[in-house]
Amino acid sequence: MGAQALVGHAQDKQDKGLVKYVDPMIGTARMGHTYPGATAPFGMVQLSPDTDTIPYAVDGKYTGDVYKYCAGYQYEDKTIVGFSHTHFSGTGHSDLGDFLIMPTTGELQLNPGTAENPESGYRSKFSHDNETAEAGYYKVKLDDHNITAELTATTRVGMHQYTFPEAAAAHIILDMMYGIYNYDEKTTWAFIRLENDTLITGYKSTNGWARTRTEYFAMSFSKPVKTYGFKMYEKHPYRGFWGRFDQENNFPEAANEKIRAHFDFDVAAGDKIKIKFALSPVSTANAIENMKAEVPGWDFEAVKAQTQAEWNKQLGKVTVDAGTEDDYKNFYTAMYHAFLGPTVYQDVNGEYKGLDQNVHQAEGFTNYTSFSLWDTYRALHPLFNILQPARNQDMIKSMLAHYDQSVHNMLPVWSHYANENWCMIGYHSVPVIADAVIKGNADFDVERALEACINTANTRYFDGIGEYIDRGFVPEDVSRASVSKTLEYAYDDWCIAQIAKKLGKEEVYKEFMKRSESYKNVYDPKTGFMRPKLANGEWIKEFDPLDTHWKGFIEGNAWNYSLYVPHDPESMIEMMGGDQKFVPHLDSLFSMELPDKYFEHTEDISRDGIIGNYVHGNEPSHHVVYLYDWTDQPWKAQDKIRMILKAMYKTGANGLGGNDDFGQMSAWYLFSSLGFYPVAPGSNQYMLGSPAVNSATIRLQNGKEFKIEAKKQSDKNVFVKKVELNGKEVDKTYITHEDIEKGGTLTFHMSNKPNRK
Amino acid sequence: MGAQALVGHAQDKQDKGLVKYVDPMIGTARMGHTYPGATAPFGMVQLSPDTDTIPYAVDGKYTGDVYKYCAGYQYEDKTIVGFSHTHFSGTGHSDLGDFLIMPTTGELQLNPGTAENPESGYRSKFSHDNETAEAGYYKVKLDDHNITAELTATTRVGMHQYTFPEAAAAHIILDMMYGIYNYDEKTTWAFIRLENDTLITGYKSTNGWARTRTEYFAMSFSKPVKTYGFKMYEKHPYRGFWGRFDQENNFPEAANEKIRAHFDFDVAAGDKIKIKFALSPVSTANAIENMKAEVPGWDFEAVKAQTQAEWNKQLGKVTVDAGTEDDYKNFYTAMYHAFLGPTVYQDVNGEYKGLDQNVHQAEGFTNYTSFSLWDTYRALHPLFNILQPARNQDMIKSMLAHYDQSVHNMLPVWSHYANENWCMIGYHSVPVIADAVIKGNADFDVERALEACINTANTRYFDGIGEYIDRGFVPEDVSRASVSKTLEYAYDDWCIAQIAKKLGKEEVYKEFMKRSESYKNVYDPKTGFMRPKLANGEWIKEFDPLDTHWKGFIEGNAWNYSLYVPHDPESMIEMMGGDQKFVPHLDSLFSMELPDKYFEHTEDISRDGIIGNYVHGNEPSHHVVYLYDWTDQPWKAQDKIRMILKAMYKTGANGLGGNDDFGQMSAWYLFSSLGFYPVAPGSNQYMLGSPAVNSATIRLQNGKEFKIEAKKQSDKNVFVKKVELNGKEVDKTYITHEDIEKGGTLTFHMSNKPNRK
Repeated sequence: MGAQALVGHAQDKQDKGLVKYVDPMIGTARMGHTYPGATAPFGMVQLSPDTDTIPYAVDGKYTGDVYKYCAGYQYEDKTIVGFSHTHFSGTGHSDLGDFLIMPTTGELQLNPGTAENPESGYRSKFSHDNETAEAGYYKVKLDDHNITAELTATTRVGMHQYTFPEAAAAHIILDMMYGIYNYDEKTTWAFIRLENDTLITGYKSTNGWARTRTEYFAMSFSKPVKTYGFKMYEKHPYRGFWGRFDQENNFPEAANEKIRAHFDFDVAAGDKIKIKFALSPVSTANAIENMKAEVPGWDFEAVKAQTQAEWNKQLGKVTVDAGTEDDYKNFYTAMYHAFLGPTVYQDVNGEYKGLDQNVHQAEGFTNYTSFSLWDTYRALHPLFNILQPARNQDMIKSMLAHYDQSVHNMLPVWSHYANENWCMIGYHSVPVIADAVIKGNADFDVERALEACINTANTRYFDGIGEYIDRGFVPEDVSRASVSKTLEYAYDDWCIAQIAKKLGKEEVYKEFMKRSESYKNVYDPKTGFMRPKLANGEWIKEFDPLDTHWKGFIEGNAWNYSLYVPHDPESMIEMMGGDQKFVPHLDSLFSMELPDKYFEHTEDISRDGIIGNYVHGNEPSHHVVYLYDWTDQPWKAQDKIRMILKAMYKTGANGLGGNDDFGQMSAWYLFSSLGFYPVAPGSNQYMLGSPAVNSATIRLQNGKEFKIEAKKQSDKNVFVKKVELNGKEVDKTYITHEDIEKGGTLTFHMSNKPNRK
Repeated sequence: MGAQALVGHAQDKQDKGLVKYVDPMIGTARMGHTYPGATAPFGMVQLSPDTDTIPYAVDGKYTGDVYKYCAGYQYEDKTIVGFSHTHFSGTGHSDLGDFLIMPTTGELQLNPGTAENPESGYRSKFSHDNETAEAGYYKVKLDDHNITAELTATTRVGMHQYTFPEAAAAHIILDMMYGIYNYDEKTTWAFIRLENDTLITGYKSTNGWARTRTEYFAMSFSKPVKTYGFKMYEKHPYRGFWGRFDQENNFPEAANEKIRAHFDFDVAAGDKIKIKFALSPVSTANAIENMKAEVPGWDFEAVKAQTQAEWNKQLGKVTVDAGTEDDYKNFYTAMYHAFLGPTVYQDVNGEYKGLDQNVHQAEGFTNYTSFSLWDTYRALHPLFNILQPARNQDMIKSMLAHYDQSVHNMLPVWSHYANENWCMIGYHSVPVIADAVIKGNADFDVERALEACINTANTRYFDGIGEYIDRGFVPEDVSRASVSKTLEYAYDDWCIAQIAKKLGKEEVYKEFMKRSESYKNVYDPKTGFMRPKLANGEWIKEFDPLDTHWKGFIEGNAWNYSLYVPHDPESMIEMMGGDQKFVPHLDSLFSMELPDKYFEHTEDISRDGIIGNYVHGNEPSHHVVYLYDWTDQPWKAQDKIRMILKAMYKTGANGLGGNDDFGQMSAWYLFSSLGFYPVAPGSNQYMLGSPAVNSATIRLQNGKEFKIEAKKQSDKNVFVKKVELNGKEVDKTYITHEDIEKGGTLTFHMSNKPNRK
């Protein structure tokens, strides 16, 4: 796209804003695990359609189906069950799906029905032809009920607008049993009250992926409820004998494991029923306060406009000449996905639920939850250090609060709505903290943060850490995925050393630098791969580096994981035989054929999430292509980065080859398409790659601008001839964070031939 | 007992205080439903031994056994399961039993075992010979474990002291599954953390008699825990796979429906392990705060002394020349039982959980819970208006807070730990409020209180109220126990009228005075009894006034209940044929033989809870004997009152013939033995009876003293010859609340012959 087109786009942006490039449908098919519904940036409410109801297990056996519905929605499905208020974006494990609302007409049906026979329940058929998904807005026609459903959301309040083209007996169903992860079995208790004829409050406690989670709500109708009922499906009668009252019809409170509520209205043709649905982690009183603060009125369009304006503000942090329409879509949808989480987990009055299940007051920060740290420490939090530095500090403060509340004295592994779900491995709060400290984005108590990192790294009973400390590696017969753990602990320990160094704590620095070399203890020079060891010091016998998922490794095989020494690639390459041996080895990763039998053992990704044996759909390889920068053939990174960008990020529901992982996949896209990538968060370096944009302007929090120009960039001109920073040639393969923060222009001169110098 | 003996007693009192007369064992056998453990006056903690573990139902069928264990303890039992921290006193329904602690020695056993084979579990045999129960103190030897257990309590903190005479491997078991009402099935969720090696925190949510109750705790050991474990008995694994950690041993947190925790110690001979166990309705943080505020140190004896001093202060509000040692015991144990509840339900920082499940701050009052109002409105709250006026106002403020939080806009029926359990009938918050208003003990917003009373009385969907308002009676085919409800609504409505009159609200007064006459609509002149009516206005056909429990009546038959018009005995007597017919009718109540088949239908009382067909063990008859005061033969009340006092109140575990009902039975004893009784709370009159004490001094909150003298009183001299108030003859059959509040002396001149004038 030339200068003329750019002006045209700039014009568009002014008219409609950048939200026009966001397509929330990207990634909603197969393994993308994104949701198409309405949310504000980092919002507590993610109000989105759910297309099926899945139990965790059938007849006691885990079916795996629940995995498909991590975000509640699968593009291929033909029916919508309803609209629930919380969704993870792109995760590889499911939960949430709180408080499902479904509007219906005609006879009241309180069961959801099945996908095959939607008419057997309250769910409805729908068509993608009648569906619109925008940043902060979602619309669909519910065919079975002849209702147009529209959704928008502020940070803490979801707003529904249901339009009835014909007069009807209408019902709004609130299914308190519904939940993503384990439909109708994960709720341990639910409580609901009709406070008056337009206000409902309640809460629900669940034992899902989060072990002990309670979510509160307040729900307001634009029209008074005519009749209503709370149907309870489990034991626990409520002193209902003696005919004292009918507790299921027009009786204003209920409590049970399993409750479905219905609110009945008469609607005339053209009527709208609007719903404001506020969440709180603390109480129904706070939910009401959140609602009053964020959506005092009933103007659906105004709420939508306000949230889309907020999205435009966030997306406007980078303006870009991306190329084709699809390139714009990919870029801004990646930004959108990168700005969905971690999510705000705090009421407008500053209260939030802590890991100790007590209510805490956030002093001087906004509390966040849903830290999928094993994914997001790699590129998402580094991206935040550029684009969302204030938020990133609040996220770290949230992690430190979690630490204060942790009975393990541990920073979060996967912080999940006042729970630790322990998902994945390592202690990757540490690189998030180290990256912020090293990059000078650390308006928090760094001494205390270092202490938290050290205590976390010394929790001996957790996941082989004791053995790791004592032996220098995690033995596979003590803790599975032992090599993955050893490698990631080693990197995290290097991060601790960097913080210690910055604080002048020499002893700590030395201790953790030593620990950071532990990767050497699992390198088997005979095979040339990292290899699981037993507690007796022997290598495990049977070892096929392609077939090691779950056998020493997790979300990656030995082939991919053996390259995981992000903090010391130079030594790693040396250890692996130097450039001469390493470069062909790395080349072969991208060119080899991976037989199906190995792919079957790879998780979380579709077949097209793989290039050769390079698994982009899982995170351990995200830095791998940039390792060429440490060799004598850095240009080999450049065409491969462009290949990955093209192959792994497409428009449309099928656009993502693997889980977006709460924005980590998208953050990789954003960095790589801008021409640089943070291989080792905790260092201030960004390794140079091959920009896919023509130009871009990053608007920094300090008021400065950092511009990227990719001269003569095209699908063919993917090689970097020369790089200049503010007109001065860059003679290294990286730029630093300071370079960015100072503002300026990074100019890539692109060519169709590798620069072999 | 003569003057000499009195001096002797006064001496004793000075030395050891009145607690020496309190025997918490009274009522612990059979139907008394009292508990023998340690509690402070109106304390939140009732730390008491439980002697069995009872499920609500076996194979889906209610066994009724759970009823025996309303207070957790049955005197006949041979084993103690452990010591739990909350107990109702004397109720006719079970719940609570939170957080059972049991110390053991030897091999760890985590199941409670059975009463038949205590050695099969952690429970222990014990002997009453090695058991001591005092106000605020309990001690027992646990034979199986050779441990001496001692318990005491402040308002919010239970303190345990376990003495080990021999060196042993000791375990403290905390059974989070245990609960009174439905052992091991009522907990919906439990959460526990080892904060450090002496501090444990957690909570437990239950669906028991209270539908949705959560209780928080903090538990501190005097000695560091050596090892520990949290055993979980239900599904819900906590990401424990991959061998990441052993979540049941020395892992500091657990959550599950069913958890038993053990804390292991090595003890030397003579060692003591002490435990401070604080409760909170709000949070573990508040429980810790409660503990720090109330029991900062570890001096068990000091805590016991402080609580017993508080008991002496409360008991000292009445000093009495009671008669025999047993009379003293009965009197002060009745006072003790009367001062056990309602219980404080608020943390030291003023926070409490409301009916809406939100946390509220009590402004200007202490919040109370456990209002067994159908029982206690009769004599207990009137007693409080004399002996605990400030507390009674706080109780009413608590009831008004409940009203504010009620989605029904109703005052409590049975307010139960932030729940309404709807137990029994009527809206008897109303007489409690009316009695306080009429007696000038109303430092609350009386206008608002009246509004609350009216709204409560107009909740049409509750228990036949709509029909009652429309038809003047509750039809039996609409709502069972319809006559009991009609009669009690009528009385409650009279109470509303009294408040309205006091506020000069003539219209309201008239409306509710009219409603108060509804008792007339269920009187059947043909049979001479109140009789159930159907919605069509016809009397039910089959009608045996002795066999009407659950057939138009509840906790009473038509014979007893037909006398329930406490607000207008004069009209009632007139309606029933005047003195000539009424007096012999009333006489026969006490003298008739009640065949066993009728007794079997009477609930909550032992066979000796009945005199003739007069059922003292259930409340509807509590005013009945005083009805003679409205006839021309008031002396007939006098010997019967003395007979009832003797027959129904004895020392020893078997001392109570029926449930103490949270102090109502005891309050009857106290009033009646002092010589007067509040037949119609909401009136300022106390009907005169026959004092059983020789003399008494009531120390009023206003600093004045009201003395009672019973000249020549003896077991034979039970008739009142003459009554003088401050030396002036009383020519009525009652005194007023103002007479008492002014201070002075009420002198009864007793005789062995009725005064037929």
